[in-house]
Amino acid sequence: MLYEINEKALKLESEGKKIIRLNLGDPDMATPPEIVEAAYASMKAGKTKYASSYGETRLRQKLAEAHGVKVENVVITPGSKWGIFATMFLMMKGGGNVIIPTPYWTAYDLTAKAIGAKTKLLRTELENDWKVDLEALESMIDKDTRMIILNNPNNPTSKVIDPETLDGIVEIANKKGITILSDEVYGTIAFTKTKSILEYDGACRHILSNGFSKTFTMTGWRIGYIIANKMLVDNITKLNQITINNVPVFIQDAALKGLELHREIASKIKEKYRHRADLATTKLAAAGFKFSKPDAPFYVFPKLDGLDSEKFTLNLLDKGVAVAPGTAFGDYREHFRISLTAPDEEIEVALDKICEAAQ
Amino acid sequence: MLYEINEKALKLESEGKKIIRLNLGDPDMATPPEIVEAAYASMKAGKTKYASSYGETRLRQKLAEAHGVKVENVVITPGSKWGIFATMFLMMKGGGNVIIPTPYWTAYDLTAKAIGAKTKLLRTELENDWKVDLEALESMIDKDTRMIILNNPNNPTSKVIDPETLDGIVEIANKKGITILSDEVYGTIAFTKTKSILEYDGACRHILSNGFSKTFTMTGWRIGYIIANKMLVDNITKLNQITINNVPVFIQDAALKGLELHREIASKIKEKYRHRADLATTKLAAAGFKFSKPDAPFYVFPKLDGLDSEKFTLNLLDKGVAVAPGTAFGDYREHFRISLTAPDEEIEVALDKICEAAQ
Repeated sequence: MLYEINEKALKLESEGKKIIRLNLGDPDMATPPEIVEAAYASMKAGKTKYASSYGETRLRQKLAEAHGVKVENVVITPGSKWGIFATMFLMMKGGGNVIIPTPYWTAYDLTAKAIGAKTKLLRTELENDWKVDLEALESMIDKDTRMIILNNPNNPTSKVIDPETLDGIVEIANKKGITILSDEVYGTIAFTKTKSILEYDGACRHILSNGFSKTFTMTGWRIGYIIANKMLVDNITKLNQITINNVPVFIQDAALKGLELHREIASKIKEKYRHRADLATTKLAAAGFKFSKPDAPFYVFPKLDGLDSEKFTLNLLDKGVAVAPGTAFGDYREHFRISLTAPDEEIEVALDKICEAAQ
Repeated sequence: MLYEINEKALKLESEGKKIIRLNLGDPDMATPPEIVEAAYASMKAGKTKYASSYGETRLRQKLAEAHGVKVENVVITPGSKWGIFATMFLMMKGGGNVIIPTPYWTAYDLTAKAIGAKTKLLRTELENDWKVDLEALESMIDKDTRMIILNNPNNPTSKVIDPETLDGIVEIANKKGITILSDEVYGTIAFTKTKSILEYDGACRHILSNGFSKTFTMTGWRIGYIIANKMLVDNITKLNQITINNVPVFIQDAALKGLELHREIASKIKEKYRHRADLATTKLAAAGFKFSKPDAPFYVFPKLDGLDSEKFTLNLLDKGVAVAPGTAFGDYREHFRISLTAPDEEIEVALDKICEAAQ
C-alpha cells in the first residue's frame, strides 16, 4: 500500500493536482552543495571507472573510525536497502525465519518473502510505548530462527529502543545464537541518544546497516553501508561483484565529503526536524490523535480509535495530502504515518487538513 | 580467477609496480565531458531524490524508441549485471537450469550458483569459429531448462553470432518454450552488424540486457537496462523497490546525454578500438597465436597449443602485464583474454611482452 499510494500521488501530480507529499521519507531539502561539488570534482578527475566491490578504502576507513571497527568490517552498498537485501539473501537462503518487531518498514517483509524466508512478526503497541516484550521475543525464537531485525530509531514510530530493552534483546539473541541486523539509518540524527548494536560487540557478532540518505539528504544518491564480521563483509562483496559491482566512486567521494562536514550538516537537519516535530505533535494532540513523541526526525505515527487508515489515506489524497496508511507497516489499521519531509508551510497546511479529515 | 588476478594486479600496483592492465573491460578513455556536465547540471537542479524504480520516463522513452519497443518494456538498472542478476533471480528461483555457451562471462555462472540454479555449459571452439552447435543445444534442453543466455558479441571472443545460427537458436528456444536472455552490451559498438534478439520478437518474448558502460565509456557509473515483456519489467521493478530502489536520476540524465550524442561517441570509440584490434591481431598472428578476428571492440581471446593459461597469466603479471586466463571463461586452458583497454603505446609494449613470454 506504501508504493501504491506513492504511484497514485505521482499520477495525480502528473494530472496537474497539487499534492503535499508526506508519504515518503524523502527530505524536501536539497543535498548540501559541498557534497554536489565533491561529486563533480571526482567525476572530472576521472573517478568514473570500475572500482572495488568492497567500496573505496578511504571511505571505509573513515566509517571504520567513526564506528570503532576495522576497515575489513565495512562494505559500501548502493543504499542501505541493498545492504539489508544482501545480508538477508546471504544469511536466509534456503529458508529459516526472521523475527521483525512491528510496526516495521515494509522492505524487511518484502525482502524476506522475495528470498523465500518466513517472517515472524512481534507486535508492539503505542499503549505500551512501542516496547518489545522480551518474554514474547524469547518464546518466538525456534530452531529455524536465523535473524532478528531491529530498526532503531524505528520507522514509522520514530521511537528509539530504550537501553534496557535493547540489552535484553541482545542477551536473548546471544543466548540463542541468533544474529541481530540493526538498521540504524535514523540513528545519527535522532533527538535522543540511540545505543548502537556495535556498542555490544567489538567483534561484530551482530550487523549494523546504515546509510547516507537521511543524515546528509542524499536519498537519491543510493549509498549506504554494512558493518559486520569479515566473513559476511567478504560475502556481500562477492555478491556485489555479480550484481551492482560498485557504488560509483564519485558518489563515494560525495559521501566522504558529507562525513567530513558531518557535525555541521547533521545538527542543521536535526534542528529543522525538531521544529517540524514540535509543530506536528502540537496540532495532532489538539485534534485528539494519540501518538508517542518522536525520538527521531522524519516520522509521526498517530492513532485515532476506530480509524480505517486505508480509506482515510485515500480520502486525504483526494484533498491533496499524501500520507501512508498504518497497514503499510503491519496490522495497524487505526494508525497512519506522516513524513515531515515537506517545507514547513506545506506541513502546516497538510496538518490542518489531516486534523479536519479526522473530525 | 578473473577477480583474483585483478586483486593481485591492484596489490602489485599499490606496492609501486607498474602494471599494464589488460585484464578488465574497463576503457582507458575518460567518460566524454558532455556526459559529466549533464550529470552535474542534473545534480545542481536537485535531481538527488528518490525516484521511480522503473527508471525515468524520458530515458525509458528514448531507449524504447531506439529499440522499437514500448516504454512499458524498459526498466533501468544499476549496470547490466544487475539486470542479469534480477532476471535470473526472478526466473530461476526455486531451481531449474540455464544453458550457457562457453567461453562465457564469469558472472553468468556465478549468478546461477548464487541463486541456486544449475548451469549447463555448451562448448564452442575456436576451431569451429566459436559456432553454437544447434543439435547439441537442442539435445541439452530438458524439462528443467528455463533459460539460454547468449552474449552477442561475446566476451571473451569478441565474436558475433552469425544470423543463421541465431535464427536456429531462437527457433529451438521458441519450439521448446525456453526464454533467451541476450546480453548485447558490446552490440552497438561492434565492427560487424549484430542481429539483436529484439528483431525476432516485437512482443518481447525474449529478453535483452544492455548497458551504457562500453558504448559511452561509463563503466563506473553503473547504468544499464533490460528490455522484456511487461510482466518481467514490472517484477524487476518490484525487486528494484526492495534492493537498489533507483539509479540516481543524475546518472540517468548523464546516460540520456550519451544517447543524444550516440552517433558521434560510438563511432569515435569504434575507430579507436578497430585500430587497437588491428595492432593486436597483427602482432599475435606473427607470434603464432591462433584466434578469431574480433567482430567487436575490447577483447581478443588467443590460443597457444599446450599453454597453461593460469601459469602463463601469473608469470606475465610478474613481468608487468595483466591479462585474464582462459579458465576464467570456462574450460579454456590454452587461451587467455587480452582487453584492449589501455593507451595504444601501453598495448604495444604489453603485446610484445605477451609474444615474448609465449616463446
